[in-house]
Amino acid sequence: MTNMTASTESPIPDPASAARTPSYAELARVQTRLYRYNHLASIVGWDRNAMMPPKGSDARAAAEAELGTLIHRTRTDPQLKVWLQKAEKEPLDDIARANLREIRRDWRDANALPESLIEAKTLAGAKCEHAWRSQRQTNDWKGFLENFQQVVKLSREEAQLLADDTGLSRYDALMDRFEPGVRAADIDRIFGDVKTWLPDLIVKVQAKQNREKTVAPQGPFPVAAQRALNVEVMTLLGFDFAGGRLDESVHPFSGGVPEDVRLTTRYSETDFARSLLGTIHETGHARYEQNLPRAWLGQPIGTARSYGLHESQSLSFEMQLARSRAFTGLLTPLLVKHFGEQPAFEPDNLHQVLTRVKPGYIRVDADEVTYPVHVILRYEIERALVEGDIEAEDIPALWDEKMQSLLGLDTHGNYKDGCLQDVHWTEGAFGYFPSYSLGAMYAAQWFAVMRGATPDLDARIAAGDLAPIFDWLRTNIWSQGCLWETPELVQRASGAALDPQHFRRHLETRYL
Amino acid sequence: MTNMTASTESPIPDPASAARTPSYAELARVQTRLYRYNHLASIVGWDRNAMMPPKGSDARAAAEAELGTLIHRTRTDPQLKVWLQKAEKEPLDDIARANLREIRRDWRDANALPESLIEAKTLAGAKCEHAWRSQRQTNDWKGFLENFQQVVKLSREEAQLLADDTGLSRYDALMDRFEPGVRAADIDRIFGDVKTWLPDLIVKVQAKQNREKTVAPQGPFPVAAQRALNVEVMTLLGFDFAGGRLDESVHPFSGGVPEDVRLTTRYSETDFARSLLGTIHETGHARYEQNLPRAWLGQPIGTARSYGLHESQSLSFEMQLARSRAFTGLLTPLLVKHFGEQPAFEPDNLHQVLTRVKPGYIRVDADEVTYPVHVILRYEIERALVEGDIEAEDIPALWDEKMQSLLGLDTHGNYKDGCLQDVHWTEGAFGYFPSYSLGAMYAAQWFAVMRGATPDLDARIAAGDLAPIFDWLRTNIWSQGCLWETPELVQRASGAALDPQHFRRHLETRYL
Repeated sequence: MTNMTASTESPIPDPASAARTPSYAELARVQTRLYRYNHLASIVGWDRNAMMPPKGSDARAAAEAELGTLIHRTRTDPQLKVWLQKAEKEPLDDIARANLREIRRDWRDANALPESLIEAKTLAGAKCEHAWRSQRQTNDWKGFLENFQQVVKLSREEAQLLADDTGLSRYDALMDRFEPGVRAADIDRIFGDVKTWLPDLIVKVQAKQNREKTVAPQGPFPVAAQRALNVEVMTLLGFDFAGGRLDESVHPFSGGVPEDVRLTTRYSETDFARSLLGTIHETGHARYEQNLPRAWLGQPIGTARSYGLHESQSLSFEMQLARSRAFTGLLTPLLVKHFGEQPAFEPDNLHQVLTRVKPGYIRVDADEVTYPVHVILRYEIERALVEGDIEAEDIPALWDEKMQSLLGLDTHGNYKDGCLQDVHWTEGAFGYFPSYSLGAMYAAQWFAVMRGATPDLDARIAAGDLAPIFDWLRTNIWSQGCLWETPELVQRASGAALDPQHFRRHLETRYL
Repeated sequence: MTNMTASTESPIPDPASAARTPSYAELARVQTRLYRYNHLASIVGWDRNAMMPPKGSDARAAAEAELGTLIHRTRTDPQLKVWLQKAEKEPLDDIARANLREIRRDWRDANALPESLIEAKTLAGAKCEHAWRSQRQTNDWKGFLENFQQVVKLSREEAQLLADDTGLSRYDALMDRFEPGVRAADIDRIFGDVKTWLPDLIVKVQAKQNREKTVAPQGPFPVAAQRALNVEVMTLLGFDFAGGRLDESVHPFSGGVPEDVRLTTRYSETDFARSLLGTIHETGHARYEQNLPRAWLGQPIGTARSYGLHESQSLSFEMQLARSRAFTGLLTPLLVKHFGEQPAFEPDNLHQVLTRVKPGYIRVDADEVTYPVHVILRYEIERALVEGDIEAEDIPALWDEKMQSLLGLDTHGNYKDGCLQDVHWTEGAFGYFPSYSLGAMYAAQWFAVMRGATPDLDARIAAGDLAPIFDWLRTNIWSQGCLWETPELVQRASGAALDPQHFRRHLETRYL
């Protein structure tokens, strides 16, 4: 690493400092204002998902749309273009230069879309999402479709405008906002590769696991005890409760702001592992946010790099760390403490429970071996939907067909556990799903590098010493914010570009 | 009532309708935008008090200040003055005319203050309030004073500018925003009257109650049971949980928005009544908000009339209704259900418990007989503070002296239960306290009128039929929004101007 590397231990130049040159300083001031508007948006968005009673929905949708309009107007102020042009010619140090690059990225993203479309999509998305929360419970695809068609229509308009602006295809243009530089052609190549070995691997793993004798945990697991367990595990994983919370919502997420991270989970009394591992997953997201460089907060350079890199943190925690045999040994005494002793909690058995591979309906509950299938399925459907090759009403049939062929599961008529299970589409967040599998592959690469640097890593984990992992992630990912573009960050962190074979080797090592 | 009277049952003209004349319509559109900004402010403000972890404080203060600046800028847009002048000459019906009067009031309030002062005061108030939450726990007056002096300084600047604008004294100018038209001279007259008979009444009531044998409730009362009891009582009182929530905070309040009312309370395991009656109090506020005329929401005419009238609703619920002997009979089975049977819950005894008069330190826990003393004390101190007759560091000594002379209590060195007990001053909300006692007097007047119209009111309450009360309040107060100015609303609702002798008669009837 060069001396440009950010570190939370050493003083970092302030990218918004008044000593900066005029146009850059003006741009930085606008970013600070946007940061505060986005703070409001994050908190009321969290509230909508975790706290708001149903009758608040319409007024909230109107208020959030008004704020969305304001944010959009701020990002599309014609003066920004003038300042951007002038700032390019101003003498800037490397950090300000990187921040300017990210300001320009944000400006470009924002200016391809008219305000009226932003407002309409925010409103339609909020309405669809809120209704979905009860429609999912009642398996009401028809009711959902009514709102969702408007979301699709507006998302296509959005994609077309972004495509016109960038020269990309409609789907690529949407995905570029989540994974800058990654294209559907790349995803096709990666997912095409995965499809050549994953189905066979799933069969082999199941055959191996069928020969194992695994004792299933016996519930019920009271919600209060699960919550206490989750809080203790989050603390072990370094979550700072003075700067964040854990609550409940239909669809678990990590929200809030870096200074105040809001995690949510959901509980089932028959299955503690779903909530526990979901919480560990969100804790990975949370630690990235809680450890972004403080001096840069308020500027784009102080934000997380990309959705795929964010997911690499949640999956580093949930898949690489929490499902390792070494970490399982740490979980056993905590489970005994909160739920009482039972044979299923014995470390080797517990590890079998937590690494059980079983094709299932729900993406967020999927094991890491079958997980890519859930992503591939969604990617193929949403890409076709955005490109106009299919319509919203075609989704259930396509879903059924792909679940049948890829995982051998029948989802016919079961929308609740099928295409109604995720929040993403309800809000028109198309192009996001591929990031999940990119994240899994990045995470496998990070841990391959960590094991190289710390050969006794598993012994350290087993002894409860997670510092080597947190230190590596802090140094190489968290502290870097948006200083580098993604490929350079990956290269600097791991000494190589993204190589999906790390992921394959990880699965084969753990499961075969 | 004339046919202008608003009613939630009949169609109400839409004050923001597009059919309105141009300048008025422009003003109404700005008000709708402000309504949405205020929605965001209410929700993040509730979150700050009920949910936010400590490290979120600085970023939240900055975000709230940014929003405060935006709201202030919207209210001070120079174009508003032009539209206001034109709208005055436009043909408007009575409802639009009333709405325009309230738009003008808001404009006048907003334009007396520069944006920089608003932002500085919001920031200083949020900082002081947040630190106060822990400083109160640790009795840290010195630490509090450091932040509070800045709040006082900025509040005085604010008062001076408002005074310059209105020709009122500094304190009158602040109070006018909470109780339009009410002056310190009025308060002096009313409180002066109260001081002539209240000390004697307190002595007589205590002498009477000392002859009674009252069985004290035996705790502990588990928090979960208290919460369940509160929810059941709120339901009995008509609170709509599909449009609101009950949570916890250091200082209980009613926040949120009319479509989504957020109540808070705080629990003590040794005293269920504090939380129960506090919750009933906030429920009175909540029902006013939840029953404002829906068609007017978004416009000033759709808001509650004044702080004193708001308090008349909370005190109608907490003092007039909940502490009546008739209502006590409804509470007994609920207490038995949630806490188990005990002699103290027998209706006559319970009524004695709930109407126990005992001079105490804490305003929000005070009985209704000694309550005015707490208000008089705060009024005298804050008026002197705002007018510059005393400084912030003089407060504890003045507090001690007045508590000693008015209630015979020693608060020396006990800031926690003395001048650090309320949230109001931390945020620079000076001029508000008199509204509490105006509210108590209005509430006494409402119930005097209700008893005249429904002679068997107490029998109805005892039978669990609270409809006569809710119907009267809905018809005369809730549904009226800001259609009338306060004196006219009082006249229309009760057939007379505010007469504090209703309050005196109420206390004498209940307590002697």
